[in-house]
Amino acid sequence: MSLSEIVKADYFDFLRFPTVSADPARDQTMRDCASWLEKKFGEMGLEAEIVATAGAPVVLAKWSKGGSGKRRKVLIYGHYDVQPAEMGDGWTGDPFEPRMLDGMVVARGSTDNKGQIFAHMLGVAEAIREGGAATDVIFVVEGEEEVGSDNLEGVLRARKDDLKCDVAIISDTNMAGPNRPTLTYGLRGIAALEVELTGPSHDLHSGVYGGAVVNPITVLTRLLAGLHDEKNRVAVPGFYKKVRKVAAWERLAAKNLKVSDAEVQRQAGSPALAGEPGFSAIERIGMRPTAEINGITGGYQGPGPKTVLPSKASAKLTFRLVPHQDPREIARLVERDLKKRCPKTVKIKVTPQHGGFPYFCDPKKGFGPAASRALSQAWDGKKVHYLLEGGTIPIVSVIKKVLGVETLLVGLSLPDCRAHGPDETFPIGYLERGAKMNRALLREISEV
Amino acid sequence: MSLSEIVKADYFDFLRFPTVSADPARDQTMRDCASWLEKKFGEMGLEAEIVATAGAPVVLAKWSKGGSGKRRKVLIYGHYDVQPAEMGDGWTGDPFEPRMLDGMVVARGSTDNKGQIFAHMLGVAEAIREGGAATDVIFVVEGEEEVGSDNLEGVLRARKDDLKCDVAIISDTNMAGPNRPTLTYGLRGIAALEVELTGPSHDLHSGVYGGAVVNPITVLTRLLAGLHDEKNRVAVPGFYKKVRKVAAWERLAAKNLKVSDAEVQRQAGSPALAGEPGFSAIERIGMRPTAEINGITGGYQGPGPKTVLPSKASAKLTFRLVPHQDPREIARLVERDLKKRCPKTVKIKVTPQHGGFPYFCDPKKGFGPAASRALSQAWDGKKVHYLLEGGTIPIVSVIKKVLGVETLLVGLSLPDCRAHGPDETFPIGYLERGAKMNRALLREISEV
Repeated sequence: MSLSEIVKADYFDFLRFPTVSADPARDQTMRDCASWLEKKFGEMGLEAEIVATAGAPVVLAKWSKGGSGKRRKVLIYGHYDVQPAEMGDGWTGDPFEPRMLDGMVVARGSTDNKGQIFAHMLGVAEAIREGGAATDVIFVVEGEEEVGSDNLEGVLRARKDDLKCDVAIISDTNMAGPNRPTLTYGLRGIAALEVELTGPSHDLHSGVYGGAVVNPITVLTRLLAGLHDEKNRVAVPGFYKKVRKVAAWERLAAKNLKVSDAEVQRQAGSPALAGEPGFSAIERIGMRPTAEINGITGGYQGPGPKTVLPSKASAKLTFRLVPHQDPREIARLVERDLKKRCPKTVKIKVTPQHGGFPYFCDPKKGFGPAASRALSQAWDGKKVHYLLEGGTIPIVSVIKKVLGVETLLVGLSLPDCRAHGPDETFPIGYLERGAKMNRALLREISEV
Repeated sequence: MSLSEIVKADYFDFLRFPTVSADPARDQTMRDCASWLEKKFGEMGLEAEIVATAGAPVVLAKWSKGGSGKRRKVLIYGHYDVQPAEMGDGWTGDPFEPRMLDGMVVARGSTDNKGQIFAHMLGVAEAIREGGAATDVIFVVEGEEEVGSDNLEGVLRARKDDLKCDVAIISDTNMAGPNRPTLTYGLRGIAALEVELTGPSHDLHSGVYGGAVVNPITVLTRLLAGLHDEKNRVAVPGFYKKVRKVAAWERLAAKNLKVSDAEVQRQAGSPALAGEPGFSAIERIGMRPTAEINGITGGYQGPGPKTVLPSKASAKLTFRLVPHQDPREIARLVERDLKKRCPKTVKIKVTPQHGGFPYFCDPKKGFGPAASRALSQAWDGKKVHYLLEGGTIPIVSVIKKVLGVETLLVGLSLPDCRAHGPDETFPIGYLERGAKMNRALLREISEV
């Protein structure tokens, strides 16, 4: 076999582990995949170990040049767990038996995150084969990213000395498009809450009590309708107080992504877009905070009618945050607003859930310019795009908090890769491209 | 067994049929219960038959004195189907295994409507045992009342000659309170609709698209919040145009019910009441139309958070109507209002469901005074109360339309019986009381 055939065979072996972290029956699979990674890192010339946790194990793998000279050290984070995938979800083949289709690998995890972390492993392995990487390296590959990374912070804290580094690298974000190298320089944070209203102590007949007893669903619709004003701005008092003003170059960078509102609308399959005035769709996603109702429930939901005036109604809310909003403070503001607006006719219970800080790493400072140079090199001199991601990668804030370093987000994920959906894909050529990017990045970092 | 023990055993057998008409899997159960009724009527001395329909069968049972003298004939209507009932709804025991609790029978259908129709059956059976009822009698017991009585009108039309009568009797309404005989002289009508909004063509990641793509739940909360104005009046344009002005004696009768706002609040277990200004709670329920959200659903409803921006959100609505509102016209007004207010960012689908006209029968005319006398006799000379019921019995309007007769609404249902809710109850003593009322009523009707 040629080297590229061996590489592909290894990647396919990695994809064949059905490492669905949400499935409690997968414990042994998670351990098997971690062992496979430990062995693979070893073959590549790194010193690997498996760190057990209360959940899925974390794989650490380090390579150091040794000697007395002061060298940079880079932490490379990835995850070997994947989202659930069932044939019934619309897959056109076994999600855990990788297939090639027009140069694309179709399999669960092909992009998110096995393909992307494997590209970094290949880059470091190549460098070691050729005499050594440009920096010292420590890989952290966890198995619980898709279920909240509950045990990772503990591992980072316990192994803080081993993980001491100058900067972290993660490839788990979108590119602006195929062959368009992209540096993601910010992520939105999140504040999640659940609100539950209780009106009558039990479900009532809506004919017998309707008009006299207040319906908690009606109150809930009023409270939630009041989360936005008529211009689609979030109406919670104080919500925008700490929102960072974006720089002129950022709006230009957003424009240069050339993701039109029509393109976002096409991807979403939405009849029409709308949102906060004064911003394009891509700007609203990256630069502006939002309020979303992720779920609402109350009363009868089965087939046909049921004339009930229900006791309870509830909703799940998330607020996507931008610097310098604090998820705990936003949760408090929302709770205060909902409680203030809630009439005495119902009891209200607001339960804050998980939160994550927004992240921002100025690409003009620190290791940002090095990352830009490396991306351009890896993609044959192409212009680098700068992206603000709408989603949240909580681990980025954890790395900053525990290890005190910034993270360079150099994703290899294509916008239409169907991560989390059926028939997830990854261009097979991006393994080599990612390995090249890894080597350029370590080299550039070593020279800062 | 004593007669009362046999009666109770029969009643419990009737309650054990889980005749949930909303559940399509209950076809056989409906037929079994209809057969049980046919047999029971036969044992009581009536001539019973089962009339098949496209849905649940209708049971007819007649008794006639025969001979040549001109006699009054009374139609007694009831239903053997019940509302859904699941342990998860808050029942403290199997809803279809009746239990006794302080003289009350706890079971789904105990009040609505099995207990009440069974009391009439007992009254007629007693009279037959003692030589004959005071009038000729025809029972009509259907199995689709809780889902709109779709097939009953056809049966009434097809069997119009057999069903020819002077007046109808229904016990399916509330009493003013325990041991307070009550004649219900009006019912609210109903217009039911389902509204479904579709935003994106598939569920989206709320981080990746939130802020740019409009969330259909958010739109739904705005549309539904707009169903009422700030004073709790229904805000649909034209909604109140045909609402009847109530007479002074009616407001006095409502006051004489002595059902305070505090009592309604206590029954509902509601933190506080609110409603249309200028009316007491009992007046709002009887005399005024309303808009209720019976159910709402959208997005993720399981445990914990899920950051989804859902494709769909929907709600079930009912409007309770008073004379002279027309359910078809109200459904049209609501559909027009929702569609007019719905933004282009989502697709809206409004599906009108069942409708029923409001009903009004002056208790000072026709058989009204006879009903008043009979109620007073059955309850040991107590004063009779006059009630406008908030619920809907569409069949009352159908009986008037098809058979041309009024209906006397002589309910045995207590205000806190929890019909449609968990732990529905009926006082076991009301079987005997209802049988007595039935006999007094047939006697009084025979003498008008």
